[in-house]
Amino acid sequence: MNYFNMSVSELESAEKELLKEYENVKAKGLKIDMTRGKPCKEQLDLSEDMLKVITCNADCYTDYGFDCRNYGLVDGLDYAKKIFSEIIGVPWNQIIVGGNSSLNLMYDAVARYMLYGVANVNKPWVKLEKVKFLCPVPGYDRHFAICESLGIEMVNVPLLSDGPDMDIVEELIKDESVKGMWCVPKYSNPTGTTYSPEVIKRIASMKPAANDFRLFWDNAYAIHDIYDEGDTLVDILPECEKYSNGDMPLIFMSTSKITYPGSGVSALGASRTNIDHIKSIMQKQTIGHDKMNMWRHVRYFKTADGMREYMKKHAEILRPKFEICLKLLGENLADKGIAEWTNPKGGYFISLNVYKGCAKKTVSLAKDIGVVLTDAGATYPYHNDPNDANIRIAPSFPPISDLEEGMKVLCLCVKLAVVQKLIEEKK
Amino acid sequence: MNYFNMSVSELESAEKELLKEYENVKAKGLKIDMTRGKPCKEQLDLSEDMLKVITCNADCYTDYGFDCRNYGLVDGLDYAKKIFSEIIGVPWNQIIVGGNSSLNLMYDAVARYMLYGVANVNKPWVKLEKVKFLCPVPGYDRHFAICESLGIEMVNVPLLSDGPDMDIVEELIKDESVKGMWCVPKYSNPTGTTYSPEVIKRIASMKPAANDFRLFWDNAYAIHDIYDEGDTLVDILPECEKYSNGDMPLIFMSTSKITYPGSGVSALGASRTNIDHIKSIMQKQTIGHDKMNMWRHVRYFKTADGMREYMKKHAEILRPKFEICLKLLGENLADKGIAEWTNPKGGYFISLNVYKGCAKKTVSLAKDIGVVLTDAGATYPYHNDPNDANIRIAPSFPPISDLEEGMKVLCLCVKLAVVQKLIEEKK
Repeated sequence: MNYFNMSVSELESAEKELLKEYENVKAKGLKIDMTRGKPCKEQLDLSEDMLKVITCNADCYTDYGFDCRNYGLVDGLDYAKKIFSEIIGVPWNQIIVGGNSSLNLMYDAVARYMLYGVANVNKPWVKLEKVKFLCPVPGYDRHFAICESLGIEMVNVPLLSDGPDMDIVEELIKDESVKGMWCVPKYSNPTGTTYSPEVIKRIASMKPAANDFRLFWDNAYAIHDIYDEGDTLVDILPECEKYSNGDMPLIFMSTSKITYPGSGVSALGASRTNIDHIKSIMQKQTIGHDKMNMWRHVRYFKTADGMREYMKKHAEILRPKFEICLKLLGENLADKGIAEWTNPKGGYFISLNVYKGCAKKTVSLAKDIGVVLTDAGATYPYHNDPNDANIRIAPSFPPISDLEEGMKVLCLCVKLAVVQKLIEEKK
Repeated sequence: MNYFNMSVSELESAEKELLKEYENVKAKGLKIDMTRGKPCKEQLDLSEDMLKVITCNADCYTDYGFDCRNYGLVDGLDYAKKIFSEIIGVPWNQIIVGGNSSLNLMYDAVARYMLYGVANVNKPWVKLEKVKFLCPVPGYDRHFAICESLGIEMVNVPLLSDGPDMDIVEELIKDESVKGMWCVPKYSNPTGTTYSPEVIKRIASMKPAANDFRLFWDNAYAIHDIYDEGDTLVDILPECEKYSNGDMPLIFMSTSKITYPGSGVSALGASRTNIDHIKSIMQKQTIGHDKMNMWRHVRYFKTADGMREYMKKHAEILRPKFEICLKLLGENLADKGIAEWTNPKGGYFISLNVYKGCAKKTVSLAKDIGVVLTDAGATYPYHNDPNDANIRIAPSFPPISDLEEGMKVLCLCVKLAVVQKLIEEKK
């Protein structure tokens, strides 16, 4: 029954029921962590054979006799570039292969522009009175943390079902202090949204007032489908080039959710101009990233297709986890009119929107009985969800049984929070 | 015979002889690279067994059951901290274990202070009109490149046989814009100098005018002795603490020249205050560095003593290389009065000073007949050796036979360059 059609006394009796249930769950002493998009043990176990591809000195040489152990190659192994190239749609020789973290590449990219400015403009952002980034919301908390840490003002842009609201974006970029936009274009964190070709066309053809505007294109879930039929993403670089915007995008990805979260390989692709500029500064920062780990990945996957094929094994593990979440959301919340959620075909998250003003309460209620969710607000810049409505569900890490338990608790807490809010409002 | 006592005609006949020899060498078509302090193949082969310590899923867990594959631990594995702790003399819980490059930790440390300022002061250096660093010379080119890239003005300080000239340092730090000093305190690059206890005491007790002055203590060769009896270095952090300067030093090291140059593990140690401050910013940059590689190193070496013991194998390989260089320098240049050089007990370099104004010419003459040395000037800020005298010899990489050939060429070119200079001067 829809809570919104209930009288105060009906709501109060519903609350009583829910509180009883809540106390019962509390007594169980649950300890379930659903905070982050961490792959689970079974997923990590998938790459066991990668640990066996470099086990002696002779294994350390590429087919061309290059010794991966020594110094050199600030932009990484060509072999690795070629695999990433096919996946992110950037020519292989316009790719820098990084260390274990694409977040690190992103932070460094922004910090570099703060200190040096972008290629050919060379006006350090740190010298400007104000620097703003557009942030499609809800979005990825670690992107927002980079901006906040570096003093970049964030401007919310609604993320619609086909990507950022481009009417708003096109208006905002008339402001010259807007220097960047964060995008997770495929299976966006947390909604699972994949940007449509139309939206990508509008992004690629933008004419920002700032001549040093950059698109931070975090293609974190490029091949992270959970069904055979995944979403398709238009490659951003060639699309931008059509509109003479080739220098606009910086494209990031990593194998953190392919092999190991802490020991994968990251990549950054962009125009020749951007890559040359970034390399010229990066070579002051490092002599090169870990080529042994690149080679380990290359020998294991061999090709981009090898990597894509391998992702099906992750899908096998993740699919039932997503499905149990969606099933329980449907069973518990569908008829109440108090929540809606996304139904993604890949990525790591489901986004749940509850009745306005109830997200924090829900998360806090769940925490008190042993189910820890991502903080409410985390999906918004400055941890400020203006509607206090969005909750990120991360199904990957807990075992199915915990996940089932955790989701039931979440649904219970949503109901309880909303009922209490409605009672308050109606009184 | 000492060239300085020769007449012009004696010098001219010496030049004729040298030129004949030069043409003979040229005809050989040598191709010898002595540019960088790269470990040689045999050194890299030493750590083969490290490739065998993690080869299945079960190997990925620490003794406490922590899964090294997943996200987490921005400051790295405690096990790794404990090994570094003993070597750099910093409490283990005041260490951040980084990625494969201590240079990266150093660049990031300086860039971080540019953007955020130091702990508790929080005045970004980039906001200041001028930032200066003291650079003991000759020194490490990559340190100087960091400063140059970030627009930090470098001030030369002579490196004496026991460390930086502290009379000069103590004068220079009265300038509030002096915010840092680079130090390679043990087996300094390129001279092999180890700072004496007296110099370290003077460094530790400095009273810089700037309250945000930091000592960039690059202990790159902490355990890199080539003889059983190596130099001893006083630990800088406890020494600084004696003078209430605990927040002054940032101490760096890595296993780049222990295991793999491109795939080692780096570390940064400092006061609690500095480490907490750095971690608070670093956690915006990355979720954590490669813990699998840390664990690989930990399982392989087990303890700091294990690592120290292992360094003897490197010494076995490097010692004859250093000795052949020193022998050839002695045989070819000792009686000429035109050059002097260092005789280090460890590290990666020998520093050669030739007659004023002859270093560039020497390196260029050698290059023209197939022996590539580090660029003359590279050991000074802005590539500017005011005496044009210093040449860095890097004995590690070439095979002994090449090294022998290369050193003969170097000595020949020193003689030729100096003779030609003397002729020019005397005419």
